[in-house]
Amino acid sequence: MSLLIRGGTVINADARKRADVYVEGGIIKAVGENLDVPSGAEVIDAGGQYVMPGGIDPHTHMQLPFMGTVASEDFYTGTAAGLAGGTTMIIDFVIPSPQEPLMEAYKTWRGWAEKACADYSFHVAVTWWGDGVAEDMGRLVNEEGINSFKHFMAYKGAIMAEDEVLYNSFTRARELGAIVTAHAENGELVFQLQKKLMEAGMTGPEAHPLSRPPAAEGEAANRAARLAEVIDVPLYLVHVSTKDALDEIIRARLAGQRVYGEALAGHLLIDDSVYKHPDFEYAAAHVMSPPFREKHHQEALWKGLQSGNLQTTATDHCCFCADQKAMGKDDFTKIPNGTAGVEDRLAVLWTHGVRTGKLTMEEFVGATSANAARIFNIYPRKGRIAEGADADIVVWDPEATKTISAKTHKQNVDFNIFEGMEVTGLASHTISQGRVRYKNGELFTNKGDGRFIKRPAFKR
Amino acid sequence: MSLLIRGGTVINADARKRADVYVEGGIIKAVGENLDVPSGAEVIDAGGQYVMPGGIDPHTHMQLPFMGTVASEDFYTGTAAGLAGGTTMIIDFVIPSPQEPLMEAYKTWRGWAEKACADYSFHVAVTWWGDGVAEDMGRLVNEEGINSFKHFMAYKGAIMAEDEVLYNSFTRARELGAIVTAHAENGELVFQLQKKLMEAGMTGPEAHPLSRPPAAEGEAANRAARLAEVIDVPLYLVHVSTKDALDEIIRARLAGQRVYGEALAGHLLIDDSVYKHPDFEYAAAHVMSPPFREKHHQEALWKGLQSGNLQTTATDHCCFCADQKAMGKDDFTKIPNGTAGVEDRLAVLWTHGVRTGKLTMEEFVGATSANAARIFNIYPRKGRIAEGADADIVVWDPEATKTISAKTHKQNVDFNIFEGMEVTGLASHTISQGRVRYKNGELFTNKGDGRFIKRPAFKR
Amino acid sequence: MSLLIRGGTVINADARKRADVYVEGGIIKAVGENLDVPSGAEVIDAGGQYVMPGGIDPHTHMQLPFMGTVASEDFYTGTAAGLAGGTTMIIDFVIPSPQEPLMEAYKTWRGWAEKACADYSFHVAVTWWGDGVAEDMGRLVNEEGINSFKHFMAYKGAIMAEDEVLYNSFTRARELGAIVTAHAENGELVFQLQKKLMEAGMTGPEAHPLSRPPAAEGEAANRAARLAEVIDVPLYLVHVSTKDALDEIIRARLAGQRVYGEALAGHLLIDDSVYKHPDFEYAAAHVMSPPFREKHHQEALWKGLQSGNLQTTATDHCCFCADQKAMGKDDFTKIPNGTAGVEDRLAVLWTHGVRTGKLTMEEFVGATSANAARIFNIYPRKGRIAEGADADIVVWDPEATKTISAKTHKQNVDFNIFEGMEVTGLASHTISQGRVRYKNGELFTNKGDGRFIKRPAFKR
Amino acid sequence: MSLLIRGGTVINADARKRADVYVEGGIIKAVGENLDVPSGAEVIDAGGQYVMPGGIDPHTHMQLPFMGTVASEDFYTGTAAGLAGGTTMIIDFVIPSPQEPLMEAYKTWRGWAEKACADYSFHVAVTWWGDGVAEDMGRLVNEEGINSFKHFMAYKGAIMAEDEVLYNSFTRARELGAIVTAHAENGELVFQLQKKLMEAGMTGPEAHPLSRPPAAEGEAANRAARLAEVIDVPLYLVHVSTKDALDEIIRARLAGQRVYGEALAGHLLIDDSVYKHPDFEYAAAHVMSPPFREKHHQEALWKGLQSGNLQTTATDHCCFCADQKAMGKDDFTKIPNGTAGVEDRLAVLWTHGVRTGKLTMEEFVGATSANAARIFNIYPRKGRIAEGADADIVVWDPEATKTISAKTHKQNVDFNIFEGMEVTGLASHTISQGRVRYKNGELFTNKGDGRFIKRPAFKR
Repeated sequence: MSLLIRGGTVINADARKRADVYVEGGIIKAVGENLDVPSGAEVIDAGGQYVMPGGIDPHTHMQLPFMGTVASEDFYTGTAAGLAGGTTMIIDFVIPSPQEPLMEAYKTWRGWAEKACADYSFHVAVTWWGDGVAEDMGRLVNEEGINSFKHFMAYKGAIMAEDEVLYNSFTRARELGAIVTAHAENGELVFQLQKKLMEAGMTGPEAHPLSRPPAAEGEAANRAARLAEVIDVPLYLVHVSTKDALDEIIRARLAGQRVYGEALAGHLLIDDSVYKHPDFEYAAAHVMSPPFREKHHQEALWKGLQSGNLQTTATDHCCFCADQKAMGKDDFTKIPNGTAGVEDRLAVLWTHGVRTGKLTMEEFVGATSANAARIFNIYPRKGRIAEGADADIVVWDPEATKTISAKTHKQNVDFNIFEGMEVTGLASHTISQGRVRYKNGELFTNKGDGRFIKRPAFKR
Repeated sequence: MSLLIRGGTVINADARKRADVYVEGGIIKAVGENLDVPSGAEVIDAGGQYVMPGGIDPHTHMQLPFMGTVASEDFYTGTAAGLAGGTTMIIDFVIPSPQEPLMEAYKTWRGWAEKACADYSFHVAVTWWGDGVAEDMGRLVNEEGINSFKHFMAYKGAIMAEDEVLYNSFTRARELGAIVTAHAENGELVFQLQKKLMEAGMTGPEAHPLSRPPAAEGEAANRAARLAEVIDVPLYLVHVSTKDALDEIIRARLAGQRVYGEALAGHLLIDDSVYKHPDFEYAAAHVMSPPFREKHHQEALWKGLQSGNLQTTATDHCCFCADQKAMGKDDFTKIPNGTAGVEDRLAVLWTHGVRTGKLTMEEFVGATSANAARIFNIYPRKGRIAEGADADIVVWDPEATKTISAKTHKQNVDFNIFEGMEVTGLASHTISQGRVRYKNGELFTNKGDGRFIKRPAFKR
Repeated sequence: MSLLIRGGTVINADARKRADVYVEGGIIKAVGENLDVPSGAEVIDAGGQYVMPGGIDPHTHMQLPFMGTVASEDFYTGTAAGLAGGTTMIIDFVIPSPQEPLMEAYKTWRGWAEKACADYSFHVAVTWWGDGVAEDMGRLVNEEGINSFKHFMAYKGAIMAEDEVLYNSFTRARELGAIVTAHAENGELVFQLQKKLMEAGMTGPEAHPLSRPPAAEGEAANRAARLAEVIDVPLYLVHVSTKDALDEIIRARLAGQRVYGEALAGHLLIDDSVYKHPDFEYAAAHVMSPPFREKHHQEALWKGLQSGNLQTTATDHCCFCADQKAMGKDDFTKIPNGTAGVEDRLAVLWTHGVRTGKLTMEEFVGATSANAARIFNIYPRKGRIAEGADADIVVWDPEATKTISAKTHKQNVDFNIFEGMEVTGLASHTISQGRVRYKNGELFTNKGDGRFIKRPAFKR
Repeated sequence: MSLLIRGGTVINADARKRADVYVEGGIIKAVGENLDVPSGAEVIDAGGQYVMPGGIDPHTHMQLPFMGTVASEDFYTGTAAGLAGGTTMIIDFVIPSPQEPLMEAYKTWRGWAEKACADYSFHVAVTWWGDGVAEDMGRLVNEEGINSFKHFMAYKGAIMAEDEVLYNSFTRARELGAIVTAHAENGELVFQLQKKLMEAGMTGPEAHPLSRPPAAEGEAANRAARLAEVIDVPLYLVHVSTKDALDEIIRARLAGQRVYGEALAGHLLIDDSVYKHPDFEYAAAHVMSPPFREKHHQEALWKGLQSGNLQTTATDHCCFCADQKAMGKDDFTKIPNGTAGVEDRLAVLWTHGVRTGKLTMEEFVGATSANAARIFNIYPRKGRIAEGADADIVVWDPEATKTISAKTHKQNVDFNIFEGMEVTGLASHTISQGRVRYKNGELFTNKGDGRFIKRPAFKR
């Protein structure tokens, strides 16, 4: 199986050039001008198009059991929706219950993920500390190719990691050459505010953002960064939604720390007015944590991307349908948290980032693919169009347009937070492991074609 | 009993002027030029001297039971030493043990303090949360004249307040019109670092600052400020020792929060090299928390005072003698934490602040007296030379000099962290409640002359 | 002539208390509870009202010859309008033409000001450098009681001071113990942008803010602060209108510099949308420099006041009527720059500052009166209700309301930028030099009753 | 002529890998594992070594006529010295005298540079504005391959660009798709301080840093950035030597501006104590502008590199021998400004950056080569080890050591600011245009082998 992508402009995170790309056996074999067409090679005409490394979504939750239900998107439908949007790899999360051995949870998730049709990896959450956790972390890093551990600073009474867990896990991660990541919200504060709001009779989705103020995120971002400073471990903050948290990343980076931040497509574009919508279904469909924020935070996040203080974009793709969201009809704290987006991220970011002049095309590639690959140590196997790299490629038509809608998206959920948004710039072809898996609106996927990608430890 | 202070220059926090001050019945009755001498009035010649409100030290721990011993300075000796240095009022701390009712501890401390020879008040620490705490806080504010509650974010396993306690106590303080204060150090981090250092065989005082890095203080300062932001309560951070914590105060203030910071005389002038001293006694004598810091922090603290981001100075006067400090001979975590200073604060601050041009004389009065009085709501009864105010006055000879020494100080402790420092600018007379209690090196005090001063709740 | 203000609450910048105020001979003679009414004293019932030091407007331009016309408000009408709003003193500007001796200009302005009905002082602008300027500065400071010199960094080709002038004048001011002030906008940039906009056919008022972007103000604020840093002279930035300039003040203050900032009532409340108004008269009436700004700057200015980084409020009262503004009908650069406000400042600031909880009443007094008095060295003669101070007093009815309108205001101009604004909190009585000059809507003024107030040099 | 570099680890700015590099015709033809040795190819054994893109020094002044003399290093000796240190390209400066047509100066410099033995380019300074300047800028960009224009904000009375020149030149650069660069020091302030110091009898080198305080650099950095903000042109600040200037870069970048900063090897490592050296020769040899700074600035610069806010390193290589420096024996303002370093930069940065853990090897490549190539738009032709790139390569022996000394360096100057510094990490081979020009201590260069490299305009 070989493939020649001809006539396009290759965009990498550092430069662009006119070049053909030749792929064989799932690997990029040549990047150059006027490559010959080997016999039998499929040819894609990329004239007028951009040839970029496929998107990497470093933050998804496929078929997650959460808040009493299970996310509607499974690893097959989810990776397929990603391919439809130009995303060729996801990094999902293994989330052990407190006291559950990490390896046990890891195996469960590995089993679920076998049906994926594009490549994937896992962050593993450390939700508790005790006998065996340090050992399992070692095994995950040294044997399983996991180099990142996640910590939830929110969700008190469930998976929240207190400072003691953070300290132990960060210290162990440092020993192992792993990176730590954190969901930065002060869980105690959220818990108390939820209680206070419910007691005050504010039971609807409009209370959701009030229960999770920017200060709660800023506080936790600071705490995680301070612990990482003392322990001297690199830190990656997922879904930075506020100027408050961004400012903490900037502070730490200016002090010489290796701290990274991720922006969600949704947080870049949607504000907290959605929670005031009179229709519960509409408002509840937007319930995720951290919530959408006042507009000025979006401006800050864009500047974070521009200045290089936020390095990646993701979606926190975690789908719940209207009937699932309805579990919180009388109690906003029971609305399953999560929104979709794995399919839309690239188009949304191109439209609002590249076309507006906020980001160069090279920065777009950095923010959608290369930076995640570098931070999570799979670069340049992933995240770069170069000889020897995995042939995970998106051919991008910068003039193609569509209107995003739940009616037409491939995602397995009945709502789209970008509903009605006109986007310009779409994948015309998505190539995974050297095969065209998406072409002009149609998917060509097989369950189980996706591979688990090991990510080696960092050498320091 | 009446008194005329004649010929001096009165310095208040907002202005200075040549004026005589007439005192009767413990109250300032007149401030003006060329006042007549009422018959029978004692006359103090303040020619060439400054007449200022007596110092208020908002942070002392007299006869504190702590770490298995009791501070060597009691309320009588401590307030007397204060008078010798121009300080006419202290605010000490009631520190209940976890589960001990606040009112019970309060009564204990009130009893101990009866022997004081200068006026005093108390902050009350909230070290736990449970039945009765909210009620006791209400009683303290509404009946006892306590308007400030202290929270230790350090000392895990002892008096450390977790976020849940902080949330509940801050919320209650807000309801009551009280201000919250915090010792900002992340106790979990300190605990872990102490353990790690001891395990690594670093058992001496040189490990003390390593166990309490600036990041631990910055983190806690941020957390306290963020909680105060959400709960909308004013916050006062005691003993700010680092640029890290100061930066958090600045951040919060720029965002419109009412956050205040206190600098200790020691932190302004002493750096962490003291802990590397080969003599255990010397090094241990400097063990306090937060520890003395690298020099650049001192510069930052001075700028904090200059820019108004730190408002007060204090001493955290908490004395332990060499035999007490020796309890930690083999384990630095067991060295009783604390240093003296209530006697030296004004001289040290005048010498290094006013004489160097860093602070104006008005700012000196603000930083040693008026600002504490305003923040803790006893102004202008205290903290101002004005008709109607309490006659707590220091007559300050700007050219008097001495060399500070444990051999000559009035403090009841065998060490002085300012040993050998030449100071210029000393109290020639200290007047408390309208009586001269200190004059040219001699004290004239009586046990029990000090009064408990009620501080009313804030009206917001 | 004596006066007793009875039953009110006296508000000073540092504290408040219930007290009567007794005035005789233009001076406050007593402040205390239950003062006796001396025979013959006029009594004002201040029950339920606040008794505050009269407003000081440190930035006005009465009858200024500017841009080919003369401001419509003269020193009599202007000071009268001030009294109607509770302002009892103005500091106006002497602005020599380039090459005009400072003393000559100074005398001209002194002559014009003789008709004032309330007290006044002058800042003197240094618009050029050359023989005699240093000498005149010396004479102004040492003989005339001028302690502040103004520098226009904008208005290229007219009164703009280049860096060389700034350096020389700042250096001289430092020698003399004077404070320097600056209108911070980069005049070259404004000049070039005006040219570019006019060439592009953008000739209307909507081009005005485009010709003076926030960056132009931020730049000049930085430059002034940096020069002041090197020369070690205190600096006061007039009409800070942007976060950009405020951030420079904050930066300098945090570095230990003595830099002060002034906010105009207009800049605190009005945004740049006014320039897009289709009616030329309306838009042109708002043309002043720096212009009104995007909303987020207003929020920043309020936080600047709250955090103490902006100390004063003013109006830059400089009135031009519609026919004068019409001079720039076809060329926005010819619209006389200026707006009114001396009458409205206190009411506007009370309504939007105190009533919203942004400022305490003490902070209001600081921002409207005491801080200007301190910075310009006439405190506590002005800016404080205290025995011995000038009896410039406003009795403030916090519940009185009105709707601001050009139809009813006392200002001699046909437009009011606060038109239609409902304010709550108004002067019921304004007392100047111990006499009631305004009472419940009526003025009782005499031309020439105002005095020139000498402001002594600073001792450093 | 072909070359195989075998067995090394290729380091690019984004990643590293074990790979051989095959070079032919001056171009990198292959990068991969276990490449075959073509017959006739020279083989370099890079086992245990790193193969990196040759250094690009974006700031040199070879044979510059300056301050009444001419820099001792010419384009041949200077580029040769560069090769000896692993630097394969320089960007020098064309500096027209005021009123001299840019094209004329450009031709002069092109002539001088013909003798270079390694590739080079030029920034062209805009030192005045008037007829023909805009046209010449256009010709330089469109015909000559110049895409960067330099502006001296210092050197009043000589080449200093006032704001009017800056505005015009920045605006023209933007039209042309060029980047602007600036030497950021406030020339007026420097001029005045020089005068003041000379008048005070401070005539020696110790006055040099006093005449150029950090504030002067911070001011100019701010001004340049503000102008660039308004004109919307990318800006590159040369030789950032202070935290003050760095903070301005950070500020601008956080606001979304494209502002870049360059650190000199000297400024990263040497502090201002050198100017207090009693030996005039020693002190004068360090005179350059901006001067070496207090130590805390060095720490800030390193953090600037770590956080990505400074992107490049350079040397400002501008050599004057002792007899030339002696011109300023009695007047420090006449000491020719400049120090050497083109030979030492990489070794110094590796030793103090990579070996200390401050920078990764990838960041080292970014800071010494790739980032300059990207910012000045010759990437990936220069700055990357990749197929198709120019074969400008350094083979780096991380364990080789030497002691830097003027006695042994190849630079044509009698002093070395790094004298006596032990460095670990040295070029074993430097390859320019595919030929080994330096090998284990020996140079193999020919005059005139260097090529002028055109740098195309930016497309925006």
